[in-house]
Amino acid sequence: MLANVLILGGDLRQIRVGEEFFSDSYNVSFCGFDREFINSEFELYDNLFDALNENDIIIMGLPVSKDAVKLNTPLYKGEILLDDIVKCAKCQTVFLGGIPDEIFIKKLKRKTENVFDYYSREELIIKNIIPTVEGAISIAIEETPFTLYGSNVLVTGFGRISKLLARYLDALGANVTVSARKLHDLAWIETLSYKNIRTSEICKTIGEYDIIFNTVPATVIDKNCIDNVKPDVLIIDLASKPGGVDFNYAREKGIKTIWALSLPGKVAPLSAGKIIKETIKNILDELGG
Amino acid sequence: MLANVLILGGDLRQIRVGEEFFSDSYNVSFCGFDREFINSEFELYDNLFDALNENDIIIMGLPVSKDAVKLNTPLYKGEILLDDIVKCAKCQTVFLGGIPDEIFIKKLKRKTENVFDYYSREELIIKNIIPTVEGAISIAIEETPFTLYGSNVLVTGFGRISKLLARYLDALGANVTVSARKLHDLAWIETLSYKNIRTSEICKTIGEYDIIFNTVPATVIDKNCIDNVKPDVLIIDLASKPGGVDFNYAREKGIKTIWALSLPGKVAPLSAGKIIKETIKNILDELGG
Amino acid sequence: MLANVLILGGDLRQIRVGEEFFSDSYNVSFCGFDREFINSEFELYDNLFDALNENDIIIMGLPVSKDAVKLNTPLYKGEILLDDIVKCAKCQTVFLGGIPDEIFIKKLKRKTENVFDYYSREELIIKNIIPTVEGAISIAIEETPFTLYGSNVLVTGFGRISKLLARYLDALGANVTVSARKLHDLAWIETLSYKNIRTSEICKTIGEYDIIFNTVPATVIDKNCIDNVKPDVLIIDLASKPGGVDFNYAREKGIKTIWALSLPGKVAPLSAGKIIKETIKNILDELGG
Amino acid sequence: MLANVLILGGDLRQIRVGEEFFSDSYNVSFCGFDREFINSEFELYDNLFDALNENDIIIMGLPVSKDAVKLNTPLYKGEILLDDIVKCAKCQTVFLGGIPDEIFIKKLKRKTENVFDYYSREELIIKNIIPTVEGAISIAIEETPFTLYGSNVLVTGFGRISKLLARYLDALGANVTVSARKLHDLAWIETLSYKNIRTSEICKTIGEYDIIFNTVPATVIDKNCIDNVKPDVLIIDLASKPGGVDFNYAREKGIKTIWALSLPGKVAPLSAGKIIKETIKNILDELGG
Repeated sequence: MLANVLILGGDLRQIRVGEEFFSDSYNVSFCGFDREFINSEFELYDNLFDALNENDIIIMGLPVSKDAVKLNTPLYKGEILLDDIVKCAKCQTVFLGGIPDEIFIKKLKRKTENVFDYYSREELIIKNIIPTVEGAISIAIEETPFTLYGSNVLVTGFGRISKLLARYLDALGANVTVSARKLHDLAWIETLSYKNIRTSEICKTIGEYDIIFNTVPATVIDKNCIDNVKPDVLIIDLASKPGGVDFNYAREKGIKTIWALSLPGKVAPLSAGKIIKETIKNILDELGG
Repeated sequence: MLANVLILGGDLRQIRVGEEFFSDSYNVSFCGFDREFINSEFELYDNLFDALNENDIIIMGLPVSKDAVKLNTPLYKGEILLDDIVKCAKCQTVFLGGIPDEIFIKKLKRKTENVFDYYSREELIIKNIIPTVEGAISIAIEETPFTLYGSNVLVTGFGRISKLLARYLDALGANVTVSARKLHDLAWIETLSYKNIRTSEICKTIGEYDIIFNTVPATVIDKNCIDNVKPDVLIIDLASKPGGVDFNYAREKGIKTIWALSLPGKVAPLSAGKIIKETIKNILDELGG
Repeated sequence: MLANVLILGGDLRQIRVGEEFFSDSYNVSFCGFDREFINSEFELYDNLFDALNENDIIIMGLPVSKDAVKLNTPLYKGEILLDDIVKCAKCQTVFLGGIPDEIFIKKLKRKTENVFDYYSREELIIKNIIPTVEGAISIAIEETPFTLYGSNVLVTGFGRISKLLARYLDALGANVTVSARKLHDLAWIETLSYKNIRTSEICKTIGEYDIIFNTVPATVIDKNCIDNVKPDVLIIDLASKPGGVDFNYAREKGIKTIWALSLPGKVAPLSAGKIIKETIKNILDELGG
Repeated sequence: MLANVLILGGDLRQIRVGEEFFSDSYNVSFCGFDREFINSEFELYDNLFDALNENDIIIMGLPVSKDAVKLNTPLYKGEILLDDIVKCAKCQTVFLGGIPDEIFIKKLKRKTENVFDYYSREELIIKNIIPTVEGAISIAIEETPFTLYGSNVLVTGFGRISKLLARYLDALGANVTVSARKLHDLAWIETLSYKNIRTSEICKTIGEYDIIFNTVPATVIDKNCIDNVKPDVLIIDLASKPGGVDFNYAREKGIKTIWALSLPGKVAPLSAGKIIKETIKNILDELGG
């Protein structure tokens, strides 16, 4: 059984991943961190070659790299090159990272076939919805001078983030409207006791909302919409790039807009770490390890 | 009918009070603010005597004064003395302020019997629960590295803040325990599907909680409790002075504790302003004005 | 320690009380039931004297008697006279019954001071709210040709039954209005996201409701109200005698009205029995037994 | 514009459909009902030929026919043959019915292409979930001697009925477990704060549940499961034919099982009628009429 886990770079979340594997009786050591961040009971490697040589499960950060050259090591004064990792990689070793870059994967795969992107797994995506939505709720409370209770809120789109967000907003006393394109989604929104509106009609009622959450990765809140919002509306965009709001135009018009990306790591790094660990565990189980 | 409202000092909340009265067709003017904070459509008095002479409903801040000498005017470079207000006060004028100091009330009452503390009204206290609880939720999300969902939360006491807080925490997926002393409160807590615990037994289970909200204005979280909490617990004290946590001992022990006072004004000044306005409206209605 | 429990008359609920005490390792026997209703592992007395002589905790039905003469024994072909119970009662024996009649209590107390009305205990009253409210919800679903979802519902009064009922109706998608007399209750109703209305104003809006639940034991739904309800409204009265609806006038006008009394025993006799048992256990604990 | 609606057979739901169209300013008449069921303001045809000749929107019952020969007319002493409808049908006329039989459709389509099955529309299916789930809740309350609150409930499958049912049961205080096959459904169930279990593992925990709701149209609750349930469990099957429970074996074993089909028409015929009407309106709108 694979039993030696190396946490190779990353932030608080990956440290948590290490701690969680340690609780499960794995041998856990670290590389790519300064000593002050790592509990003294853990081994901390200086030498990349030794680290990779002596371990068989290598867990990297999220993202693995920000520039496709150096490993992402925000808690480390030194630096580690992706190419050095490739050089030291052994056959059979399992490499796991978040959104690893294509070329790095290709090079690594010449050494070992066990290279995985834990961030693309559906169970991780679903579990990350909770910290995302909690973060969104917290932003809405902090960044508006009024209560969520009694405010008119629009949530665009009816994917999973929307479903949980609408549920929470409703529980906190907001008047929730959810937009969708499909007739059966609109029927379901109504069934859950929220107001519904067709995506194509958003602009007609956009002036009624105190807070707008966008979850759709396409420009739903366009110039026309922005021309019609309340002047003191708060727009929170939860969609990944390119986002769903015409940010430049919103800024020009003085409309307060927050692009809230990567909330799980910011709002709940320990929970996010735990989710990553559970996901990696599923990958290892499927590997038979 | 009384129709001329003067907002005399205060912060964003009192400005909102003025705007709300304006929407109700009252004449509204301001004194004790710098021009930049007041919309240009409103008259802004420089002269206290004129301000008090030309208006019949005088609304002051919350609190009216912080030192029993000067009016509380955080958005004003100048200063206004309480004694000058007393001097200029006319008979019949209605004075309304938040937690006005005893001596000031006594002096004012020699001029007019219509002196009111809007902050002591029960409808204001109840409506302020909402921004208080939203603020508490937001702090809990921001100040812990884990999600509310799935965390073990203790709420001490079963007054109105607790009732709403427990409801919200439960809706957000936390495991909620509420403590109370009375048997029928414990039965009711159970009926609402929360876990219950007798106040006297808190210390026995205190080590299970990830977040503790105190709402009881007596030292419930004492040295003994603090000795037994999780090292990374977050304690949020919502009780007014003297609070319910032995803060010094908690600090000494490195336990993270936040004393969250006056949340409505911080988290939702517009909503808080609206609540103050509605309360003042009730007072005026009862006066027959 | 007292250890011999006799279930003396009553219905399914009291049988459940016996079974629950049996699970707690008490000796349990029965009297005042036909054999077919009692599990064969339990002793069933024919002779009242023996039954009372050989046991020290005597549990009677709810109510103890319907005519102040005979014990309430709906599952028994024979009959037991209250006066015979008094005759056979021993000093020290604990008698527990639901709503025992005054004269019977007086007579029994000459024999033993340990005579208790378990139905008057506050923890029982609170726990009985759950089956009451579930029964009310079920009636509303069954007896209307429309869904609770989307219907306009009035709940009169803001006691504990109302609080739970409003919570459940809201969760099931009804539009809930709660009436109350006190300003701070009205504020609290609003805080919980229901609509509120002053009791004195009910008649003005009574025509909007599809279902009306009364919880107030005073004639809230009077002739004037009944003249103004929707013709196909359903009125469910949950108040104990004399009820809160002018039933005769409602019948005359063809308004469907259901006086839903004693729901716990009808809807959930096992749960009701369990609640009685827990209450009796509390009484015994307080006795030191 | 098509404006003359004929309600041709059916039950309370179709009568409601007629009333709803009447409220929308359509001309509405009836055929295939006894006079006592139809409000006197509506025309009631005796003669099928006239009825079909003078109207252009023909709405039939649900199902259209039970025997593929006669029209389904439960509120009519007479009878109407499907073949007679075909004979009298005019080109251009719109025929709408619930689950019309294949041969009937084929024959009708030779006369007019506008033949529709309103029961197959997705918006109807979704809106019917509400009365289905309310009916299921009511059955569970009525048919068990204990409260939903505190009971252990299994809901099999994670389609839309399950989603709403789990939400309602949770709101009413039940301990809800939902089974599913897919990993991401299991993750989502957990996110919504219910317990989850893999479909393949149901039998291992089946003995813990007080109530089991099946929503899967395949034999999930098989002999093996039935051998392991609590003796006093209640099984409610909400799946359409062939259902998800081995009914014969359950009966043999004395396990209480209710196959709750067609709840919307039974529990909330008016709401069901309204839903049918809205669906028919959508079909007509799509026709351009």
